[in-house]
Amino acid sequence: MGATKTCVLYYDGFAEFEIVLACLAMSRGEIVAVGPSLDPVTSEEKQRLLPDIALADVDPADVDLLIIPGGDPAALIGDETLAGLLRDLAGREVPIAAICGGTALLAAAGLLDGRECTGGGDSIDDLDELAAYFKNAIIVDEDVVIDGRIVTATGRAFVEFAFEVGDLMGVFESEEEANTQYWWFKNVYDED
Amino acid sequence: MGATKTCVLYYDGFAEFEIVLACLAMSRGEIVAVGPSLDPVTSEEKQRLLPDIALADVDPADVDLLIIPGGDPAALIGDETLAGLLRDLAGREVPIAAICGGTALLAAAGLLDGRECTGGGDSIDDLDELAAYFKNAIIVDEDVVIDGRIVTATGRAFVEFAFEVGDLMGVFESEEEANTQYWWFKNVYDED
Repeated sequence: MGATKTCVLYYDGFAEFEIVLACLAMSRGEIVAVGPSLDPVTSEEKQRLLPDIALADVDPADVDLLIIPGGDPAALIGDETLAGLLRDLAGREVPIAAICGGTALLAAAGLLDGRECTGGGDSIDDLDELAAYFKNAIIVDEDVVIDGRIVTATGRAFVEFAFEVGDLMGVFESEEEANTQYWWFKNVYDED
Repeated sequence: MGATKTCVLYYDGFAEFEIVLACLAMSRGEIVAVGPSLDPVTSEEKQRLLPDIALADVDPADVDLLIIPGGDPAALIGDETLAGLLRDLAGREVPIAAICGGTALLAAAGLLDGRECTGGGDSIDDLDELAAYFKNAIIVDEDVVIDGRIVTATGRAFVEFAFEVGDLMGVFESEEEANTQYWWFKNVYDED
């Protein structure tokens, strides 16, 4: 078995802070950045990132995890290449983890129908007109929600998202290791 | 007066999570990524980022803030182009903000001699042999230390670092705005 292959979706204006810790959690394996094309993508933090592969060229059989950041995903709503990939991955039970506005891409592809989920910065309501895509979803008021192989999170829970994704993918050797790392990233000190 | 120009130093293996929120805090202005060259740089999180300018081409008169991430900066220790830029910026009282291993680059350039500072993941001790460069520094056991125009932080305090940098640069309209944003990124809910 080869290294775990994590794909992460880039698009212009994506909130990179929301997924960078999830990439770090998965970085013992391979990280493959997927862009609309191979052109550099500019994040919300005004950094230019290089995709490794174009969306149309992703082979779903070759993906172990897909991570989808928030930001403003409106330009990708209705993108049939993306929606097709999402449905294919879901059909293969490949984990898909979306945060903040990225959850709207799952909802628009129908993947959240009948599923428990969350999203938006604080809640689905933050997604404004994109919230309509969640009309058949079961919205849960939690930071991170896992239903089957689909992980959704609020934007503010970017640290918790990384750890839930890492836990789902089995990257931590023990619960103690996961906890120690989590509190380090939260910068909360052990009283002992 | 033009937009604030924030330079952020990239180098192979840099911990991008440590500086992405500081870039976000400064993103109303211009963000300029400075690389050893214009070649893409691979972060600790295995993302490829594109520098906007090579280190040798940075005009210190054109920088309002320099942000330096951690990771493994050993390859840049003793780099005279970088050390010269750091001394020039410090002489102009341009703020320099370094986190985690990035603080060792300031120490090695002599900028922390006689100054209060912190660094490393949890503390300067984490920097192992690089800790020797801090022998003339005044090491303070705090998450973030500001001495004059020089900000240093531990890696785990990446959220606090972003807010202290933003505050120093005057990006928040009020203390209330800064606090609200801070607790959002910490994902701690107001009890009210």
